Amino acid sequence: MKKDYFAIAMSTYEEFIEMVKDIYRLGAIQSHLSWDQQTIMPAKGASSRAEILSWLAGEVHKRLVDPELNRIVSELESKIDTLDPDMACNVSRMRREIEQATLLPAELIEEMARLSSESRIIWAQAREESDFSIFAPMLEKIISITKQKMRYLGGEDASYDVLLDEYEIGMKMSDYDPLFAGLKKRLIPLLEKIMAARANEQQIQIPEGMEFPIPSQEKFCKEVASRMGFDFEAGRLDITTHPFCSGLWDGDTRITTRYDALDPFSCLYAVMHEAGHGLYEQGLPSKHKLSPRGLAISLGVHESQSRLWENQIGRTTGFWKVMLDSFRKQFPEFPENIGPNELNRIANSVEPSFIRVEADEITYNMHVMLRYEIEKQIFEEDLPVEKIPQVWNSLFEEWFGIEVPEDRLGCLQDVHWSMAAFGYFPTYTLGNLYAAQLLEAMSVDLGDIDQIIAEGDWSSILQWLRTNIHHQGSVMTPAQLIESATGKAPSPDAFIRYIESKYGELYSLSDY
Amino acid sequence: MKKDYFAIAMSTYEEFIEMVKDIYRLGAIQSHLSWDQQTIMPAKGASSRAEILSWLAGEVHKRLVDPELNRIVSELESKIDTLDPDMACNVSRMRREIEQATLLPAELIEEMARLSSESRIIWAQAREESDFSIFAPMLEKIISITKQKMRYLGGEDASYDVLLDEYEIGMKMSDYDPLFAGLKKRLIPLLEKIMAARANEQQIQIPEGMEFPIPSQEKFCKEVASRMGFDFEAGRLDITTHPFCSGLWDGDTRITTRYDALDPFSCLYAVMHEAGHGLYEQGLPSKHKLSPRGLAISLGVHESQSRLWENQIGRTTGFWKVMLDSFRKQFPEFPENIGPNELNRIANSVEPSFIRVEADEITYNMHVMLRYEIEKQIFEEDLPVEKIPQVWNSLFEEWFGIEVPEDRLGCLQDVHWSMAAFGYFPTYTLGNLYAAQLLEAMSVDLGDIDQIIAEGDWSSILQWLRTNIHHQGSVMTPAQLIESATGKAPSPDAFIRYIESKYGELYSLSDY
Repeated sequence: MKKDYFAIAMSTYEEFIEMVKDIYRLGAIQSHLSWDQQTIMPAKGASSRAEILSWLAGEVHKRLVDPELNRIVSELESKIDTLDPDMACNVSRMRREIEQATLLPAELIEEMARLSSESRIIWAQAREESDFSIFAPMLEKIISITKQKMRYLGGEDASYDVLLDEYEIGMKMSDYDPLFAGLKKRLIPLLEKIMAARANEQQIQIPEGMEFPIPSQEKFCKEVASRMGFDFEAGRLDITTHPFCSGLWDGDTRITTRYDALDPFSCLYAVMHEAGHGLYEQGLPSKHKLSPRGLAISLGVHESQSRLWENQIGRTTGFWKVMLDSFRKQFPEFPENIGPNELNRIANSVEPSFIRVEADEITYNMHVMLRYEIEKQIFEEDLPVEKIPQVWNSLFEEWFGIEVPEDRLGCLQDVHWSMAAFGYFPTYTLGNLYAAQLLEAMSVDLGDIDQIIAEGDWSSILQWLRTNIHHQGSVMTPAQLIESATGKAPSPDAFIRYIESKYGELYSLSDY
Repeated sequence: MKKDYFAIAMSTYEEFIEMVKDIYRLGAIQSHLSWDQQTIMPAKGASSRAEILSWLAGEVHKRLVDPELNRIVSELESKIDTLDPDMACNVSRMRREIEQATLLPAELIEEMARLSSESRIIWAQAREESDFSIFAPMLEKIISITKQKMRYLGGEDASYDVLLDEYEIGMKMSDYDPLFAGLKKRLIPLLEKIMAARANEQQIQIPEGMEFPIPSQEKFCKEVASRMGFDFEAGRLDITTHPFCSGLWDGDTRITTRYDALDPFSCLYAVMHEAGHGLYEQGLPSKHKLSPRGLAISLGVHESQSRLWENQIGRTTGFWKVMLDSFRKQFPEFPENIGPNELNRIANSVEPSFIRVEADEITYNMHVMLRYEIEKQIFEEDLPVEKIPQVWNSLFEEWFGIEVPEDRLGCLQDVHWSMAAFGYFPTYTLGNLYAAQLLEAMSVDLGDIDQIIAEGDWSSILQWLRTNIHHQGSVMTPAQLIESATGKAPSPDAFIRYIESKYGELYSLSDY
């Protein structure tokens, strides 16, 4: 009897997984066409691309709300104890996807895809010209449709929580508010002490006006990414306004960056960041591809991978000891008196500045909190679109003590809002917290991580991440995964220890 | 009554066209992913790419054989007199697609897509290493599945005709055999006379060993393509082993080429050829995109566009008069004593050589006939795969008088067989015939084409092609289209006049 029951579940599961794979195939095509749109598509392809992305979004939606899929999922749920954990994971995660989709009408999904596809181009133009008024009408539409989405998902009284939950399951304003308040309480005094220490010391800087040719930057960055373990036979590096990573298909993970001929660090740390994401994608379990079980579990965990490589590996004296020869080979005119210690100082220079993706580890989280604050105002207090630059700039001046000179350096800097990705930013800070916690646990297993970095063979670091994070796919929740990897529930403690110790030492602060 | 009947047809037509558009959207995605596969995809993406292309082929097939589509098409066929010609065109062309798909099982289509996706990589490797044995097992599979396809489409006694008809509606062996025999009869004596004349004259050549840097070639080629009217804001130029044009989406037409640092002509004429295809795609009627009505009508007509720009415009003294300054700007070391007349001689140098895509206008068609002959032997006489190199080489020696030194220069040179595109090559010769006929008609309307070319403003040429060919989409059959554009049914006469006059003059042949 048990055996027949099992056989029925299996044949139902096979039917289920074929439907799931079709949905995930369409999703992979969406990612691919979106990657192409952002990197290499000719400008006049914009409108037909928007059309196809919108159609694909509609096709995915149609399949998610298919009553037959719902029936099969219900049937599998009733036999969940006959399924192995991988299967059970796919069933429960598809249930969440079905629920979200069922609440949203197809027209809304298609319209959102169309809008975000079109608006990315308008946003890029507005940013290029540093003119918020170019972007404002489109942003108005995007906010308005996002509010509709909120109501569909959460009812008439839906709050910003609905958007937060979409990007990191279970996280709400009531989780982020105290977390951010606590962080801010420790970061602000640290920042003040650092600024005071900086005032008394000579600043080390990249020689002003020195040019770092872009082909040399590209070579150096590719060398670093390869050393991290990013497989260029299974990936690419291209150029976009806003760097990103797209884990398109098995064997094909694409990362992007942008170049500044006067600043090689901007590109380097963007590449390390995106390659960190890329390594996660390249390490996901192949056999579960095209199903939720094979996906990265959350944005927060994804960000922990990128931030760990960018900051904990890349912004260290050990990193620069290993990479110095290559760096000098690409940039032979770089002054000889700037060595690993000085490069590390430059890479960790703390200073309030305008661009989030170029911010140091302390102010970075303040950038996130600022966006979180503005999004809360948009969705909780109906902040009008035209007031966004003003609110941004006045909050920025209050928190960072500097005046935003133009919107390119302010509220136009990030791509997210053009994609209707509200609720996304806070996951960046979660990533920082997870990364610090992972690093502590890793050093218990592997020994002194700084020493490993300085020795130049980083494969044990990647292997640890492969085993504890990448290979796990989405079999656990983010909190379970972090606890399983580190032995502790997620908390900001490790990050605070890490940041106070690193910067206390770097700036010889007496209290840290 | 009439009005209601019309209204019913209209609502049925709308339902029909939505189904058609879905099929064409999937087709555009296939083209896009195939373009990506051939240009920029990382090597390890091959297997997941093959999987998705096969899946897409299956999805297209599933929709084509959907009984509901068949029912709707039948209903529209019964009311065909209430539809306008555009609608009627879509209905009749979808009937042909449905019929072809219905005859083929989905598994076969998916398997063919999978095989051709995989084999393209193996073919490229075999060609790179000039080793037929690497490609042979895959080619065996491709021929075997193509034979299955032939039987599904044409029954147990299916002939090579079935494959020929797929690529150019209505063309059979009984059409091509006399056409090719007639052409051969005129081309062989012309070739012999040219070879005799060449023996007595000093050859003009590109200085041996001179390097033409690839970035300069790219700039020059892009300038030529832009002058032709190719819109780079609605297109791209990339690098592939085998140049091709992909008319992906409205506003996004991508062409490719390959570079040889010792020979700028190879790339130039490949780009003019592909840009000729690209202009056709960019000129197709936008409002009929995503339906058969908006497609290029046939491969033969497509090829007429590429060959016209490549040969009738590009291989003329007038072309070189216009482009010489730009050419010298990119290649300042190019000898001053080689001017437009000499460049034209180089570009039209007739000589039996190995590579079809680099062949002169006379031997080109002999290259096509050779492939036609071998394909006939494969499908009519079961020529074993391992004998292909031998048959190729011995036919080649017989017809061209030279010995093929390696398979890279022989039966491994073309991508077509790796894609199971048997029956495709003869359309290249049709293209040459159509191009000559179009040129004659164009000169009746516009005056001396050579003079227009030499004056450097080629927009009237493009406009003539836009009006008479591109904007027509597929509203007429190829034969109707050529007749409507030229006032005469398609025939080889204009091509023979063109080729005998051009080369008679170029080589001062007394009888021409």
